[in-house]
Amino acid sequence: MRRPAEFELIARYFAPMAGPGALGLLDDAAVITPPAGHDLVISKDMLAAGRHFFNSDPPDMIARKALRVNLSDLAAKGARPLGFLLGLALPADWTPQWLKAFARGLSQDAEAFRCPLLGGDTIRAADGLTLSITVFGVVPAGRMVKRRTVRPGDQLYVTGTIGDAALGLLLRLEPQAAWAAALSERHRRHLLKRYLLPEPRNALSGALVKCARAAMDISDGLIGDAAKMLRRGNGGLVINAADVPLSPAARAAVNANPARLETILTGGDDYEILAAIAPERCAAFERQAARAGIAVARIGEMTERPARAVILDAGGRPLRFARAAHDHFAGSA
Amino acid sequence: MRRPAEFELIARYFAPMAGPGALGLLDDAAVITPPAGHDLVISKDMLAAGRHFFNSDPPDMIARKALRVNLSDLAAKGARPLGFLLGLALPADWTPQWLKAFARGLSQDAEAFRCPLLGGDTIRAADGLTLSITVFGVVPAGRMVKRRTVRPGDQLYVTGTIGDAALGLLLRLEPQAAWAAALSERHRRHLLKRYLLPEPRNALSGALVKCARAAMDISDGLIGDAAKMLRRGNGGLVINAADVPLSPAARAAVNANPARLETILTGGDDYEILAAIAPERCAAFERQAARAGIAVARIGEMTERPARAVILDAGGRPLRFARAAHDHFAGSA
Repeated sequence: MRRPAEFELIARYFAPMAGPGALGLLDDAAVITPPAGHDLVISKDMLAAGRHFFNSDPPDMIARKALRVNLSDLAAKGARPLGFLLGLALPADWTPQWLKAFARGLSQDAEAFRCPLLGGDTIRAADGLTLSITVFGVVPAGRMVKRRTVRPGDQLYVTGTIGDAALGLLLRLEPQAAWAAALSERHRRHLLKRYLLPEPRNALSGALVKCARAAMDISDGLIGDAAKMLRRGNGGLVINAADVPLSPAARAAVNANPARLETILTGGDDYEILAAIAPERCAAFERQAARAGIAVARIGEMTERPARAVILDAGGRPLRFARAAHDHFAGSA
Repeated sequence: MRRPAEFELIARYFAPMAGPGALGLLDDAAVITPPAGHDLVISKDMLAAGRHFFNSDPPDMIARKALRVNLSDLAAKGARPLGFLLGLALPADWTPQWLKAFARGLSQDAEAFRCPLLGGDTIRAADGLTLSITVFGVVPAGRMVKRRTVRPGDQLYVTGTIGDAALGLLLRLEPQAAWAAALSERHRRHLLKRYLLPEPRNALSGALVKCARAAMDISDGLIGDAAKMLRRGNGGLVINAADVPLSPAARAAVNANPARLETILTGGDDYEILAAIAPERCAAFERQAARAGIAVARIGEMTERPARAVILDAGGRPLRFARAAHDHFAGSA
């Protein structure tokens, strides 16, 4: 089958989802006019086959995950999505069918999250599929929710449930493990889906701008990421493992093998939000989260000392793990 | 040798060149406040080893080329650089020495073009080195210079000289060819350097905003790119091959083998600007380009008909080539 040249490929698969400012994907650049009195929030996440997804994953899911991990960054910063650029390095064996499904998934989420395609670049990959998405959002001027502006006494919240995606990845890598065999089919499906398709919490961004002292998205494991909120002089933090919200599937995994708790607390790919809320704003934050339909759970707090991240078990004893975080850079998919 | 984790790598090599709004590369996102009354111009170019550069190219040159091809897009749109995001997918065999040189080159051009690093993402590549840069610029509101806003009678200009980089690439691929052997060492060096390190014409952006009806950067070959200025209903264009500015090295290549003219007119990687100027603005444009220190040459004009791109030889006869443009997507590096 003949495969189209770059411009044909763009016209066929991507132009239909282009937003205003994209100039039909027919110019060197896109142009956006951020609303007056707003800042522009920009973020970029790259994903590579075999590292952030499996080559065999359905193409629409790969596309949606790539967009969603970027949307998750905007959500954590309190920013409303404005649009995105897509960098797509296609392997030599790409097919029009693959690309069609990829574009369909991308378009579906671009619409669902009101985040239109603004432009990008399509190249032939050095080897495997590589994606680079740059996402743009807006916040009222000066109000972007930062990561390291925490203070002792702030209460730590997370959205959703933690660890599902890391367990889902482990299920893909070792489907025959004893803990995996102990799960029900429904639980397995839940964990696999959570790895394949994160749920960015963009509905929470308004509440974060109004109530959060600091926030970040959890992509490299709860404990390691929480430590990234700390800087010299702003204290430490305590997380109570028993308060970390788990899905029924994750709970079943821990019941089958307590070592899976480490996977849950230090694995990657949650794409949930970790937020630090001043004590006097907690009630308002919980109310607004409920109104937005996003489950939030209080898991700990910022402390004066020790000046590091500590995680306690149900008995109040510090938990220690071999590695605190998943490093997508060092690790495999 | 131990290789650093992602956060160490960022702190060591990239944080020193981070601009305001980058938050020290320690947050999920960067924040920028475009100046009031301005639009934001955004563009993204990806580059992959073996397609846009050679794996063996000096790392500082790879970095500088990656930034410069993006700066070239801003230049063509009349936008002043504001900053960039770097997506870096490193192959398994990267070394700290390689990355140090890469960062040094990037920093050098970020400073020279006043385009600071704002953020990005570093991952391990699926296989070969892949780069994705997103660049941001500003133009006065509503004044971005577009590509397809040409009108019949507009005069076509290009900056610099055309075809050097395409000849430089050919020299890399077939150094023993007869035409290559006929070149002086100085000419060979000139062509090789033009492929390795484009000269984006950002100094021209003010003149383009003031004088140009339309402009684009030439990255996929003069003739094919010129045709991209056309749309149904805005006529055609004529380019006089004899007026296309050639370097002494390119002229020597054509003298050695007239077939090299096709390489020059249809090869890629020029990163010069093609601009359409209304006749009454030509004098002002030439004056302002001279003041900016950028050589410009009038090479043809937009026509009523035929509604396509035509290139004429010195005798006024249409030239025809096997392929009109270099397709980075289909072609090899």
